[in-house]
Amino acid sequence: MILLPVMFLTGLSFVTEQPYSDETQACIDCHSTITPGIVKDWEKSLHSKTTINDALKKEMLARRISITENNSNVSGEIIIGCYECHSQNIELHADNFDHFGYQINVVVSPKDCAVCHPTEVEQYTGTKKFHANDNLTKNPTYHALVKTTTAIKDVVDGEIEISRESEINANETCYACHGTEVKVDGMRIIESDLGEIEVPNLTNWPNQGVGRINPDGSRGACTSCHPRHSFSIEVARKPYTCGQCHLEPDVPAYNVYKESKHGNIFESKKSEMTFDSVPWVVGKDFKVPTCASCHNSLITDENGVVVSERTHNFSSRIWVRIFGLIYSHPQIAKGSTYEIVNQDGLGLPTTFDGRLADGLIDETEQKNRKDIMSGLCKSCHSSSWVSSQLSKIEKVNKEADDIVAAATKLMLHAWEMRIENSENPFDENIENLWVKQWLFYANSIRYATAMMGPDYAAFKNGWTEASHNLQKMNDLIKQKSNK
Amino acid sequence: MILLPVMFLTGLSFVTEQPYSDETQACIDCHSTITPGIVKDWEKSLHSKTTINDALKKEMLARRISITENNSNVSGEIIIGCYECHSQNIELHADNFDHFGYQINVVVSPKDCAVCHPTEVEQYTGTKKFHANDNLTKNPTYHALVKTTTAIKDVVDGEIEISRESEINANETCYACHGTEVKVDGMRIIESDLGEIEVPNLTNWPNQGVGRINPDGSRGACTSCHPRHSFSIEVARKPYTCGQCHLEPDVPAYNVYKESKHGNIFESKKSEMTFDSVPWVVGKDFKVPTCASCHNSLITDENGVVVSERTHNFSSRIWVRIFGLIYSHPQIAKGSTYEIVNQDGLGLPTTFDGRLADGLIDETEQKNRKDIMSGLCKSCHSSSWVSSQLSKIEKVNKEADDIVAAATKLMLHAWEMRIENSENPFDENIENLWVKQWLFYANSIRYATAMMGPDYAAFKNGWTEASHNLQKMNDLIKQKSNK
Amino acid sequence: MILLPVMFLTGLSFVTEQPYSDETQACIDCHSTITPGIVKDWEKSLHSKTTINDALKKEMLARRISITENNSNVSGEIIIGCYECHSQNIELHADNFDHFGYQINVVVSPKDCAVCHPTEVEQYTGTKKFHANDNLTKNPTYHALVKTTTAIKDVVDGEIEISRESEINANETCYACHGTEVKVDGMRIIESDLGEIEVPNLTNWPNQGVGRINPDGSRGACTSCHPRHSFSIEVARKPYTCGQCHLEPDVPAYNVYKESKHGNIFESKKSEMTFDSVPWVVGKDFKVPTCASCHNSLITDENGVVVSERTHNFSSRIWVRIFGLIYSHPQIAKGSTYEIVNQDGLGLPTTFDGRLADGLIDETEQKNRKDIMSGLCKSCHSSSWVSSQLSKIEKVNKEADDIVAAATKLMLHAWEMRIENSENPFDENIENLWVKQWLFYANSIRYATAMMGPDYAAFKNGWTEASHNLQKMNDLIKQKSNK
Repeated sequence: MILLPVMFLTGLSFVTEQPYSDETQACIDCHSTITPGIVKDWEKSLHSKTTINDALKKEMLARRISITENNSNVSGEIIIGCYECHSQNIELHADNFDHFGYQINVVVSPKDCAVCHPTEVEQYTGTKKFHANDNLTKNPTYHALVKTTTAIKDVVDGEIEISRESEINANETCYACHGTEVKVDGMRIIESDLGEIEVPNLTNWPNQGVGRINPDGSRGACTSCHPRHSFSIEVARKPYTCGQCHLEPDVPAYNVYKESKHGNIFESKKSEMTFDSVPWVVGKDFKVPTCASCHNSLITDENGVVVSERTHNFSSRIWVRIFGLIYSHPQIAKGSTYEIVNQDGLGLPTTFDGRLADGLIDETEQKNRKDIMSGLCKSCHSSSWVSSQLSKIEKVNKEADDIVAAATKLMLHAWEMRIENSENPFDENIENLWVKQWLFYANSIRYATAMMGPDYAAFKNGWTEASHNLQKMNDLIKQKSNK
Repeated sequence: MILLPVMFLTGLSFVTEQPYSDETQACIDCHSTITPGIVKDWEKSLHSKTTINDALKKEMLARRISITENNSNVSGEIIIGCYECHSQNIELHADNFDHFGYQINVVVSPKDCAVCHPTEVEQYTGTKKFHANDNLTKNPTYHALVKTTTAIKDVVDGEIEISRESEINANETCYACHGTEVKVDGMRIIESDLGEIEVPNLTNWPNQGVGRINPDGSRGACTSCHPRHSFSIEVARKPYTCGQCHLEPDVPAYNVYKESKHGNIFESKKSEMTFDSVPWVVGKDFKVPTCASCHNSLITDENGVVVSERTHNFSSRIWVRIFGLIYSHPQIAKGSTYEIVNQDGLGLPTTFDGRLADGLIDETEQKNRKDIMSGLCKSCHSSSWVSSQLSKIEKVNKEADDIVAAATKLMLHAWEMRIENSENPFDENIENLWVKQWLFYANSIRYATAMMGPDYAAFKNGWTEASHNLQKMNDLIKQKSNK
Repeated sequence: MILLPVMFLTGLSFVTEQPYSDETQACIDCHSTITPGIVKDWEKSLHSKTTINDALKKEMLARRISITENNSNVSGEIIIGCYECHSQNIELHADNFDHFGYQINVVVSPKDCAVCHPTEVEQYTGTKKFHANDNLTKNPTYHALVKTTTAIKDVVDGEIEISRESEINANETCYACHGTEVKVDGMRIIESDLGEIEVPNLTNWPNQGVGRINPDGSRGACTSCHPRHSFSIEVARKPYTCGQCHLEPDVPAYNVYKESKHGNIFESKKSEMTFDSVPWVVGKDFKVPTCASCHNSLITDENGVVVSERTHNFSSRIWVRIFGLIYSHPQIAKGSTYEIVNQDGLGLPTTFDGRLADGLIDETEQKNRKDIMSGLCKSCHSSSWVSSQLSKIEKVNKEADDIVAAATKLMLHAWEMRIENSENPFDENIENLWVKQWLFYANSIRYATAMMGPDYAAFKNGWTEASHNLQKMNDLIKQKSNK
């Protein structure tokens, strides 16, 4: 073990000395020159300043690790450096390789983070995010949408044909957020500043998608929200993180937030708010919520009374599902949504005429979740305000479902008249308009009320477009049927 | 009256003791636990730190209240707490109710704020924002647009029909910004942490629209821009506030600002600027304007010379109206725009071929307003620069009007040929395209020049779309007339 | 020369005394009242605090001027005030005029900035930005796009006709970013606070476009990125500056950045980063790059090792061109892209079927540029990560080219069938859809991978739109050919 003034490494940012491992010292010796950005970013992290023993000394509510005692191969007396994370569970890691005499995993996975943060990983396991890759690849309906949309088309004799499916396109669109399957395809030689070195040849990489399938077989990427190499709770709590994937036109959560009163005040006053305290104190640390405040953080009041428990199951406080599917519906009970089959045999939680599939949460569970979320709202809003807001959400979801139903009827009409072909519901003009009706317009309308950014229900992908879209579908039907 | 160390309540944020009322103490006793976010937000406000007597001691230019002496029922020696605002004019408030022995208004209205801020409320009264609800409900043309767009449609025998109008949709779109009419529909029982309590049952609530009709009969919501419960001048001066309603695609003021040089510098340097000083000193407090700098704030130079007087009539420095209507035109003299009738009998400031209605401001008043605005520009730009910029705006408004005129001719042509039905100009495909020509594209073109964000005149809802839209309308006419 | 406590002028912002010229004193005497915003902005600049002699004393890597000795008409012992910049090269300036006895240039040009910053101006000279005006006006194909899109159309006998071209529209769209040609059209009298004064009458002004043609015959506007009158390096380095022109839907560089991990961390942590240090130290000053970090700044590591040299040729680190043209292609060797002629005689770097024109950089130069850019990436990413990312970019560019090729085939098919007229490829419906295929959708797809913001390849102007667009084109062809 090395006792070195960390201040030496970092200029003014450090004021105390912390011990760290010989292996981490070896990493830093080269990488502070070769990849200085990584080393400096880590130096600013809590990992570089904290030992497991210190972390365990904190009061329960203030703790940032979820083990109660240290049973790991990491000494409790050193800070968490490069080697401590990149050397876990090496027997599971197909991406482990010999790197100047050290056995290093390229991809640190949730399983590795679970050495100190097991509760968070456990909460995440089995959720929709955890299964985000599976939920596209294993659901035939959604898989068809991915493949059809991203396929390369050609024009042959004046007609559009799919000439080939495109793995790179699928990776750079849907799986960029949902997560790719990262595999090791042998080794390859790369040029480095120290000459040629041999490293694992990773496929479908780089990727930070939430349902990434890692070379150790685990699912997820903690770095989706806690980006390398500072793994900041502050970044994860700011709405920009969620906004990387949850944005218009399909999931306009971030966009609606930005133009809501919450988002306005966040942008106006964020410099006076605190984003890295644990627990996160409503009113004191933050005066308006970010995504994390309502959906997953441990929130207390100033007296330490818990308003909501920390969770990394991001839909566990939500009762209704308002995006990504044709109609709104109760949340699915399991995160493996690809297992859902509706009454018509499609992998969807509702039929085309809105009948619910099995496997959705029941009314008791819906009420539980509403109560948790309402409890959060009531930190800053009166009970009366909150119940009116919930009632609005319910009404608007119904209206949005009805305007999708009208579009669905038009598409079914087009299929009946054999104007377009029902075999693939994603590859023709009227069908594409139908997809926009629910995936863009109805989603936007629902989000606009749920998170109070009304332009997304009005002119921006809202009722203006939803109503116009019906007219477009209607005129196309008339054109294509030569009426 | 209670003399209590406020520091006790707020940790480090306060350093002095301020007296406040028994009633406010009672509010805080419960609500600091029940709705801690509200109490903490108020604690950070000026209201919690200032008495009327102190506020009156400031020099005129630095004053934040507009009474000259205190004739209210609030002691001049206490700070402004919960009860001081929620107990005004109770005889007017249909939403007043007995709350644990106190007569409390749920909705604090501009009339209540006028107890200390009468000039601001007077300035606001009668403006377009004040009448924003009326201007939709009482103008048959605009009311038809609202109702048609947000109505629920069904498909019957392959044809689109309006199945019902939707109050919730109208509330969550147009009236979210324009303001709903909030009424009291009896009382209702809600669950609270202290057991069941009875509260007024408010309809069309929550809402913070600028023309909200309140349960006391007043119009407006100061909280549209000065959000509860800190009522911050800083938030109101930042562009995010205006950007909640004035945003693309219909009123892209905020979006154009964001991509302008002004918006760029605001985002780059805002942390070095001061947003809460009164008066607001050009150059010293801010180096680029926000919406408020040009449209309503009291601006002085460093020597206290007034560059522009404070106003809460937000169009009083604007001579030309560039959004929301078919063609640009001089500002309407009265805020009750629903009273306008054009020469064809429609509730619009111009006819379909551009002739102006009566009731618009004359050239003298236009020049007055140009002079005020130019005076502001000249704080940072040369006279020559400013006059060229004004000339550009005039030219571009004309060009945008002309590209709308072309679309209008196409729609009239479609009506003549009975391809679409003129009875409702908002419910068919070609008509929807026509609406986008003026409501989205021409508006964007005009804003792009007025506020110097050129992409909104080019590729983003500008000339690219306006020119393409004419082609779309033309092809639809040919299709629907079987040419 | 005047030795005056500058602190007197600026309140608290200054702490030292600096000498400045009599002429600048005269400017300030009036303009601190007439245009206080300009004077205050300048006071906050480095110009107001630095003499040439002081600037020359800095170590080479830390220098902000690129002369090695002062051969100018500006004393090395005074700070850089109004007069020092507005009085250079007066014999070249058609916009020079007598202003209360001083010979003043209205428009300070790059040639004037070159008095102290010659290397930067030299780097800029001849680049695509330098020729940005020429590259539209002198390229017949692009000139047709500008003129057709911004022309005023009328409807005559139910048909759309171009009624006139519009210089103001072209200026307020394309040339707002590309730069106008600013000329002097005599003198004009303007009203000022000091009575009538005569000033040069500038045409196509105000404008800050990157390829502006100035009244002294020079090209460019340093103020495009270093806005007046603080000429801040911080503003230029923040992405909002680049985002004024490089934004969706045509060049979504800024938008993709914003929703990338880089952009997320920038917004989350920018208050802890340093944007005005020279050199700019990776890891220490910034933990994620902005546009400037990768494309033009002088970057070193903490030990002063240069990672990349400063350049003001903004494409000199880029090997492939992914926007603005039909297909991706190697960067053009010269910035005067209007000189390119493809094998079919059009002013484009590829033919409609993708064959490359002469005049593009060769593979050696492409590799050189890749190496420079990779070197930057490797400051924070492993070699393996970087090479995989480069490989992705190459693959995606190919896929995007292929989806444009399909649209091009459809348009050529429409031309062959005489459904639309090939004479002007920008003035009919199917042609407009074709333009969107490459100018909006393929560009977005390429940027989404290049800068890691996947929604722009998915739902936001990406594959969803590109695939749908083919269907729209196909249905229009069928409609217009009465199939």
